[in-house]
Amino acid sequence: MSEDVKINRGLKGIYFERCGVSDINGSKGELSYRGYSIHDLATKSTFEEVCYLLIFGELPSADELASFDARLKAARTLPAPVFDIIRAAKDGHPMDVLRTAVSALAALEPQSSNVGTEAFIENGIRLTSQVPMIIAAHEAIRNGREPIAADPNLSHAANWLWMLKGELPSEDAARLADVDFILHAEHGANASSFAARVTIGTEANLHGGIVTALSTLAGPAHGGAAEDVMKMVHDIGTPENAAAYVKEKRGKREAVTGFGHRVYRAEDPRARHMRDGVKKLGEEMGAPEWYEILQGVVEAMKPYARHGLNVNVDFYSGVIYQLHGIPMDLYVPIFAIGRMPGWIIQCIEQQESNILIRPLTLYNGPEPRDYVAMGDR
Amino acid sequence: MSEDVKINRGLKGIYFERCGVSDINGSKGELSYRGYSIHDLATKSTFEEVCYLLIFGELPSADELASFDARLKAARTLPAPVFDIIRAAKDGHPMDVLRTAVSALAALEPQSSNVGTEAFIENGIRLTSQVPMIIAAHEAIRNGREPIAADPNLSHAANWLWMLKGELPSEDAARLADVDFILHAEHGANASSFAARVTIGTEANLHGGIVTALSTLAGPAHGGAAEDVMKMVHDIGTPENAAAYVKEKRGKREAVTGFGHRVYRAEDPRARHMRDGVKKLGEEMGAPEWYEILQGVVEAMKPYARHGLNVNVDFYSGVIYQLHGIPMDLYVPIFAIGRMPGWIIQCIEQQESNILIRPLTLYNGPEPRDYVAMGDR
Repeated sequence: MSEDVKINRGLKGIYFERCGVSDINGSKGELSYRGYSIHDLATKSTFEEVCYLLIFGELPSADELASFDARLKAARTLPAPVFDIIRAAKDGHPMDVLRTAVSALAALEPQSSNVGTEAFIENGIRLTSQVPMIIAAHEAIRNGREPIAADPNLSHAANWLWMLKGELPSEDAARLADVDFILHAEHGANASSFAARVTIGTEANLHGGIVTALSTLAGPAHGGAAEDVMKMVHDIGTPENAAAYVKEKRGKREAVTGFGHRVYRAEDPRARHMRDGVKKLGEEMGAPEWYEILQGVVEAMKPYARHGLNVNVDFYSGVIYQLHGIPMDLYVPIFAIGRMPGWIIQCIEQQESNILIRPLTLYNGPEPRDYVAMGDR
Repeated sequence: MSEDVKINRGLKGIYFERCGVSDINGSKGELSYRGYSIHDLATKSTFEEVCYLLIFGELPSADELASFDARLKAARTLPAPVFDIIRAAKDGHPMDVLRTAVSALAALEPQSSNVGTEAFIENGIRLTSQVPMIIAAHEAIRNGREPIAADPNLSHAANWLWMLKGELPSEDAARLADVDFILHAEHGANASSFAARVTIGTEANLHGGIVTALSTLAGPAHGGAAEDVMKMVHDIGTPENAAAYVKEKRGKREAVTGFGHRVYRAEDPRARHMRDGVKKLGEEMGAPEWYEILQGVVEAMKPYARHGLNVNVDFYSGVIYQLHGIPMDLYVPIFAIGRMPGWIIQCIEQQESNILIRPLTLYNGPEPRDYVAMGDR
């Protein structure tokens, strides 16, 4: 094989498909879903509406949204054996338990094996409602409590906090969770969405694609940033320590977590909406110091940030979860709740114009050699 | 975004990495593992030895093989909750149940979360032994039988047939299963191995990579060929009907299943070893007609095969499984048993030289547009 073959490590800069869902301008720091700026969606829309927009391509009318919301709410059910499976695996990491339960749903729900756009939408709506139920049920079971039933009067975000904590969230808290889900809903050919497309490329069903996405999101380099930032905040401890922490890290040429992103050179446009939320929620809950630590880090990073080293969306989200008393190992599962519509529409687009995704590796192993019998080794 | 960006659909022809494991020459119809021809390995080696070769890079000495085999045999155990999970999901497709059980192992076995080459090897050896156990246990449970315990005196292939059927296989039958696993053990950047690499690229653990591989193999366009061929053989019914079947298919310009492969232009080098096996096993079991039907199809295809339309490895494997009385929905899980070492070494290579695998999609959706309030839609 010729040695001048180009190796595209990480497939960086390689376009594998056209896609009409989200548009990312990394150098300008812009993100839109179906043409609508993330800033408008984060301030004016709801997660349910964004799900509809991503999956169907247009903002819904009032009737369309009501009907879609009714489908989401009707899907807030889990077959009984899923609870047995969660119980059997309850001591595992929540991402492993979530992935196992979603994989089991493929075996437990007859319609899961259906393919085609209509089936993907139906299964996608079910899974969008079921994923937060699984996470909340696991959190209850591993703490010796009974899972809390979904409340059909609550929005997706409010119902999630209700099932997780067993108390009705404040309007502000529910809205912040809603915005968090909107901001995480879709982000192009990120690793989990891309891996899901590779799975769907073999004509697998939607459950297979979502299981792959969950496996991929579980890797710390993809979904782990919020948790890493929270660990850093705990390491720093008080706002006054932030500058010294950054100075020490940068002095050792180590990265400060929560800064930088594979595709953004300007600030991640999602970050500002979480920043405002952290500040407000922290004040509301009498714990403003977390926000102050984060802003201390941002200030201290400024001398090093000349080359576009800006905070990313997960810089702030961990502190919000912390303020809600959510354990750190649920941060990645929460990301999954938000990303569901993005995964679903990427899988739908893939299956509508399907092709096996199969790149090549360039062989660099041993030259052809003769087999040596055991006695002669 | 400029419209002259090149879109590499299916990533066809794109090299994303160097890899020293298997070398595929599609135009010549050659395949080697670590420099050893597949023909030598299929006729002279064993699956255990091939696992060692793929994972460690060299053929083992007698002592190395004995020690490796002892590790494989010691790993023939499943934690008790896995059986509960299989029971809970028992009516699902065997690939869904297998994937669910492997995903659950990540939650049930503390060492599953470890990363690094040594951990991947240890977890890989465990999973190589556990995957056939899960498939056989599910087959027993869904038929109302108790799972059969593994026999530490048997080879990997013989133990598989023992656990599946509850009777000791003949030497020839065990050897044919052994060869089947050798032929399926590794095949470059195929979709399931590539998807597993995308998962590992986010620093996920081996269990995550294998779950992704299983999701991807489950798609009919990847792992489903053996089943499709068997359905064709049943449609044809008797050897005399083969020519008419092919003529009708080709007259309608429909593909005849089991011919052609994404990377081979010459005959798939793995096919001949299965061909000989089908012939011999059919005669041994008093059912030579299956082989005759397949050869009838091959003869009838010759006028259409001028452009290198040759049989692939899965053209013959379905009939072997049929002769063993194995239900069709286990054909893809059997492929997974064989492919385990290939997935494992691809995951090991990825994590040893890791990079996030994140290509791009070219946005072709709506232009930027203003958000419209619900009342104005």
